[in-house]
Amino acid sequence: MEGESTRVMMGVNESMIKGYPHESISSRGAFEWTLQKIICSNTSGFKLLFLHVQAPDKDGFDDMDSVYASPDDFKSLRQRDKARGIHLLECFVNRCHEIGVQCEAWIKKGDPKEVICHEVKRVRPNLLIVGSRGLGPF
Amino acid sequence: MEGESTRVMMGVNESMIKGYPHESISSRGAFEWTLQKIICSNTSGFKLLFLHVQAPDKDGFDDMDSVYASPDDFKSLRQRDKARGIHLLECFVNRCHEIGVQCEAWIKKGDPKEVICHEVKRVRPNLLIVGSRGLGPF
Repeated sequence: MEGESTRVMMGVNESMIKGYPHESISSRGAFEWTLQKIICSNTSGFKLLFLHVQAPDKDGFDDMDSVYASPDDFKSLRQRDKARGIHLLECFVNRCHEIGVQCEAWIKKGDPKEVICHEVKRVRPNLLIVGSRGLGPF
Repeated sequence: MEGESTRVMMGVNESMIKGYPHESISSRGAFEWTLQKIICSNTSGFKLLFLHVQAPDKDGFDDMDSVYASPDDFKSLRQRDKARGIHLLECFVNRCHEIGVQCEAWIKKGDPKEVICHEVKRVRPNLLIVGSRGLGPF
């Protein structure tokens, strides 16, 4: 029953309450569940692929107090968003490193449900895991 | 990351072509996938729960040549169906026994999709796995 490691893609996002770099409760739950119920002690048998999708800020509410005076202001805004996303992923990658599970992590922009499906087709993981958003199993 | 074993429920059915006690291609595929990609070498970390749902024979075609002369004939028919289902499950249980994975198996009657959902709520496994019926991942 040995073979290539099992590639598990996880969609992760930031906490709605605490914001970056904190992970959402459901991302944390999905990650912990994966460690405890799928990977268990077999840390060398799995590779985790963390995907963080950043949706365009629809109402711009987060940036109400920002002043944009030049194209560079938008550029720096996008860079800041990306930096925050990277910080979120860093937390997951560090955790994997501590426990000895191989991983990769990357950021994409767009509508999360569409991007996740697109990335699953592109990367073809063995398993996709996403949080339950507090909905519970039933 | 150690703890209670992960309980994986699998819906399994018989081959449409070869009939009982042979498992369907998708049941076999789902079982092999679970062994190779989820359980891997961690045979003591998982418990497999095999559920086989027997749907009532809608058109009775399989029994066109049977003659029913008494209530006992129907009883023996039901017993025969159950015996076939048990034989199917025996194959999965034997395989688990060979490789050292804990398991349980049982039969229910009814509409498979309804019975599977009902049993998931009752048994509350950590994971439900069903075959893809040859549809493939995409």
